[in-house]
Amino acid sequence: MNELELIKLLTAGLTSNPSVVVGPGDDCAVLRIDPLRELVLFKTDSVIEGVHFTSDCSGHKLGHKALARCLSDVAAMGGRPLAALVALATPAAFDPARLKAIYDGLNQLAARYGVAVCGGETCLCPDRLVITVSVLGLVEPEKCVLRSGAKPGDAIFVTGELGGSILGRHLEFEPRLTEARWLVEHFPVTAMIDLSDGLATDLKRILAASGTGAELLADAIPISPAARQKTRMPKHPDPVASDTRPLLPGTPLVFALTDGEDYELLFTVPPGFAVNLMDRWRERFPQVRLSCIGKITAEKTVTIRDRLGRKPLALDGYIHFQ
Amino acid sequence: MNELELIKLLTAGLTSNPSVVVGPGDDCAVLRIDPLRELVLFKTDSVIEGVHFTSDCSGHKLGHKALARCLSDVAAMGGRPLAALVALATPAAFDPARLKAIYDGLNQLAARYGVAVCGGETCLCPDRLVITVSVLGLVEPEKCVLRSGAKPGDAIFVTGELGGSILGRHLEFEPRLTEARWLVEHFPVTAMIDLSDGLATDLKRILAASGTGAELLADAIPISPAARQKTRMPKHPDPVASDTRPLLPGTPLVFALTDGEDYELLFTVPPGFAVNLMDRWRERFPQVRLSCIGKITAEKTVTIRDRLGRKPLALDGYIHFQ
Repeated sequence: MNELELIKLLTAGLTSNPSVVVGPGDDCAVLRIDPLRELVLFKTDSVIEGVHFTSDCSGHKLGHKALARCLSDVAAMGGRPLAALVALATPAAFDPARLKAIYDGLNQLAARYGVAVCGGETCLCPDRLVITVSVLGLVEPEKCVLRSGAKPGDAIFVTGELGGSILGRHLEFEPRLTEARWLVEHFPVTAMIDLSDGLATDLKRILAASGTGAELLADAIPISPAARQKTRMPKHPDPVASDTRPLLPGTPLVFALTDGEDYELLFTVPPGFAVNLMDRWRERFPQVRLSCIGKITAEKTVTIRDRLGRKPLALDGYIHFQ
Repeated sequence: MNELELIKLLTAGLTSNPSVVVGPGDDCAVLRIDPLRELVLFKTDSVIEGVHFTSDCSGHKLGHKALARCLSDVAAMGGRPLAALVALATPAAFDPARLKAIYDGLNQLAARYGVAVCGGETCLCPDRLVITVSVLGLVEPEKCVLRSGAKPGDAIFVTGELGGSILGRHLEFEPRLTEARWLVEHFPVTAMIDLSDGLATDLKRILAASGTGAELLADAIPISPAARQKTRMPKHPDPVASDTRPLLPGTPLVFALTDGEDYELLFTVPPGFAVNLMDRWRERFPQVRLSCIGKITAEKTVTIRDRLGRKPLALDGYIHFQ
C-alpha cells in the first residue's frame, strides 16, 4: 500500500463539525471559530532522526527545520502563523545542550515571525529523536488560498530554484511567509501549495483538487545549483542514512521536477495578472527568483513542452511509502 | 538531567506574542484570538510504541489513548475540544488494517465529543509507531481553570479511583470532559489538573503553581481495584516492555499516590462549596466516585495524615527521565 492509498484509507469517514471549513487534504486544516472573524489554520508535522535528518545534524538546524515545515504550510494557505507547540521524543541518553540547540533554532525562527512557542511535551523514544511541531495560524477568509481553485488558462508560478535540497537547503530554508502574504494581498491567487514532495507530485495535487491539467515549459523550470551539482557527483550518495527516497540518476531538470523538500511556493493566478506580477515581484523581492513555468489546462493531463515537442510528464516526486 | 530540569532548560526564553494568555506549564496553552470571545486551548502529545503501549496493543485502543490524553488536558482547563490533527509515524512494513484501527479508535472517541479530526500527516519511522495528536479547544474566559488558583483552605477533590492504570485502564479511560464542564459550570473551581504522572507529582504541580502546600488524608485517597491487584502479583512485571518507570514495591496506597496515567481530575474548590459539591455530584454522576482527599495549606509542604499522625509526603510519581 502506498502513501496516497494509506491516507485515503485513514481519512475516510473522519468526524467533522461546523467549525471545519477545510478538513484533511490541503496544506492546513481551516477552522472557523467565530463566524465574523478570521479563519484559523491548524497544522502538525513530524521530523524523524534518520528519515528527515541525520544524527550528526546540528540541533539548531533541526529545530529550524521542524518549525519551518509547518510555517511553510501556513504560507501556502496565505496565512500568518500565531502559535506553535513542540512534542519532543528523545532517547534517554540525551545531550541537554543538543536539545536546547533544537529549541534555540526553532525559537529563533519563531521570533522572526512573532510565532509564540506556547508549550509542548517531552517524552522518551528509545532509538531516535522525533520532533513534532503543531502550528496555529490566522487568515482572512477572502485571502485563504486552497489547492482547489486553479482554472484553465491560469498561469503557473514557482518561487526560488528547485532540486537538490538534500545537499543542504532542506535544513536551512526560510519559509516563504513574507512572499505568500504579499501575494495574497496584491494578487488574486487561485491555488497554492508548498513544494514538499517535488514539483511533479505537488503540482498534481493542485490539479487533482482543481479538476484540471497543466502544460509545463521545460526551459522555464528554475533549476537550482544543487540540482546541477547532484548530476556531477560520481555516485549520488544520500546524506540521510536510512532515507528510503530513491536518488534517481537523472538530469538537473529531472531533479528539479522530482526532488522533495524544496519548500518553495507553487501557485496559480489568472493569465491577465501574470506580467504585472512578474514586474512587481522583481521590485519587491529582488533576491527571490519567480518563474512562470506553464499554464493550467482544461484537459486533465500533465504535459511538458521542450524543443522536441510536448510529451506527458511521467515523473513523480517523493512518496513516503512505495 | 531529569525531566523537570530539561523542561526548564528548554522553555526558558521562548517567543511569546499578545495572543498568549497562558504559555508553557499548564495542561494546555491558552490563546486569545478575538478579544471579545472564547479563549483557544492548544495541546499536543505523543504516544510511542514500547513506551506508552506494547506492540501487541490493539490499534483501536491505541488510537483511543492517543486522542484521549489530549482531551483529558482540555477537560483539565474546563474547556470543550473542537478539532484534532494526527501525525502518524510508522515503520515501512506497516499493516494498513492496524493503522486504520488506530484511526477508528481515535475517530470513535472524537465522534463522541464532536471533535473534528481535520487533518494530519503520515511519515516513516523505522523502528516503532509514534502517534502525535494535537487538539484545539475553546473555553469561556471565566470558566478557564489553571493550575495556579488554589488558595489555603480550599478542599482538594479527585475523581475516580487511583493506581494500577498500567493493568488496563491507561488504554481505555474516558477523558473527564463531561465531568469537568459540569464542574466549571456549577462550582468556582480554583485549580485543576489531569492526573498523568501520579497524584503526588501532579498535586505538587498545582501547589507549585499556586504557591501553596497541602495536607492529604490517607484514608480518603480512592484506591482502585487495580492498585490492590498489583500488590497481590508475585512480582510486578511491567507490561510495557521498555518502559523505564520503576514499579515500586508498595502498598495499594503507594500505588494510588504514585502510579501514572490515571487521567482523573484533581481540583480544588473553596471550602464552603465542598459539601454541596459532593451532594450534587452524586446525583449527577452516580457512576463516578468523587473524593475529598484533603485541603490546601498556606505552609508550603505536602503532608499526609493517617491514624499514626501527620508526616511529609516523600513519594513522587512518574518522571520521564530520572
